[in-house]
Amino acid sequence: MNDLGKLIGVGVGPGDPDLLTLKAVHTLKYADVVAHFAKAGNVSNARAIVSRYLPPNVTEMPLLYPITTERPTSDSEYRSAIHSFFDDAASAVAAHLDAGRSVAVLSEGDPLFFGSYMHLHVRLMKQYPTDVIPGVTAMSGCWSAAGLPFAQGDDVLTVVPATLDEVELIRRFQQNDPTVVMKVGRNLSKVRRALVAADRLNNATYIERGTTDQEKIMPLVDKANDAAPYFAIVLVTGRAWHS
Amino acid sequence: MNDLGKLIGVGVGPGDPDLLTLKAVHTLKYADVVAHFAKAGNVSNARAIVSRYLPPNVTEMPLLYPITTERPTSDSEYRSAIHSFFDDAASAVAAHLDAGRSVAVLSEGDPLFFGSYMHLHVRLMKQYPTDVIPGVTAMSGCWSAAGLPFAQGDDVLTVVPATLDEVELIRRFQQNDPTVVMKVGRNLSKVRRALVAADRLNNATYIERGTTDQEKIMPLVDKANDAAPYFAIVLVTGRAWHS
Repeated sequence: MNDLGKLIGVGVGPGDPDLLTLKAVHTLKYADVVAHFAKAGNVSNARAIVSRYLPPNVTEMPLLYPITTERPTSDSEYRSAIHSFFDDAASAVAAHLDAGRSVAVLSEGDPLFFGSYMHLHVRLMKQYPTDVIPGVTAMSGCWSAAGLPFAQGDDVLTVVPATLDEVELIRRFQQNDPTVVMKVGRNLSKVRRALVAADRLNNATYIERGTTDQEKIMPLVDKANDAAPYFAIVLVTGRAWHS
Repeated sequence: MNDLGKLIGVGVGPGDPDLLTLKAVHTLKYADVVAHFAKAGNVSNARAIVSRYLPPNVTEMPLLYPITTERPTSDSEYRSAIHSFFDDAASAVAAHLDAGRSVAVLSEGDPLFFGSYMHLHVRLMKQYPTDVIPGVTAMSGCWSAAGLPFAQGDDVLTVVPATLDEVELIRRFQQNDPTVVMKVGRNLSKVRRALVAADRLNNATYIERGTTDQEKIMPLVDKANDAAPYFAIVLVTGRAWHS
């Protein structure tokens, strides 16, 4: 009888492969199975980030979302489909763990910070040994790429998903904290309106694909349209810097 | 005449040296000068994290705080002293940059997220080339060490410094977001009272020296007293997990 394999959440950072941690690189070298999430028909961003560090004959396990993650999570059909998908993915991972194989699950940014890995973690953490390797978050990658001092001293930092409704976005922006807006994608028009309503549009920087070769950074007021990739981020600075 | 040297903020992560990024290790290998902040009389935590990666004869530049950083930043004497200290540190760094030497400034966690590096960055960014290498934050290190899923889906994440006054802490806790409390140190009694007032004490996990050999993780209700190191963190989970 085998010992159980270990489930390992591996944070792969914001995009630049040089922002992998030493521990992530080491783990990918020795994991029996490397799993990665992607939309059906797409290549996993996380896998692209680590590709140079995967051993040639490693067993890979793509976990393909049946539907887009950009639909409102309040939609019951969406919730039911995504719930079944994570249940099935956890069962497939568990089969490897039962056979004594370690499974490294790639996660863009940091696994326990808005990462899909969490859905496997909560389903399997009671029955299997787990390890989580933290990663550099997309927001850290973005404010570093922009050279933008972001939170200091007595600041409160707020991270909001752009999927919130407009009234709640306005309320959060009106708190005047340095605020990170995640999952911008098709919500950019709403984010822009909410920033105008809270009188903070001029504090906002738009960043897509931060730390990669395709990086774009600009004041949000200079972005001509509201088309944006899902993982684009808007950084809204707080009160004036006090040095 | 020399080219100007580059100022480089280097995030060294939460404590485990294996959580350095490949880019940070590479940068430390080639920087002309390595600067690190510490309280006078103390060894820099950041330097201890990277010590195995410093070349034997690298030029080091300790930047020693004249006073503790735990005093309220509203205290005018404190503000004046710390302001002069950062001015002087920036001048000393600038002398190296003017001579064409690159200066890597170590920063625990991520440089632009509550890091002292920012005070040099804002003073020097207009005159010198700069680069910021993001790092794994202490909060990511802590929730990973605890295996605690923290922010997902439509969650709003709030990061509050424990230095806020008690009324404001209570107000923030009452928002029911997943909340990270930084800089706990001597503020732990106040944080505990505010969590009780907001009825969230049972959601709180206390973590000190996360990801290091001296790591301690426990439910805050099980922590017998309110003595804590400055960099201790309290993680307060949000609404119930919905898988």
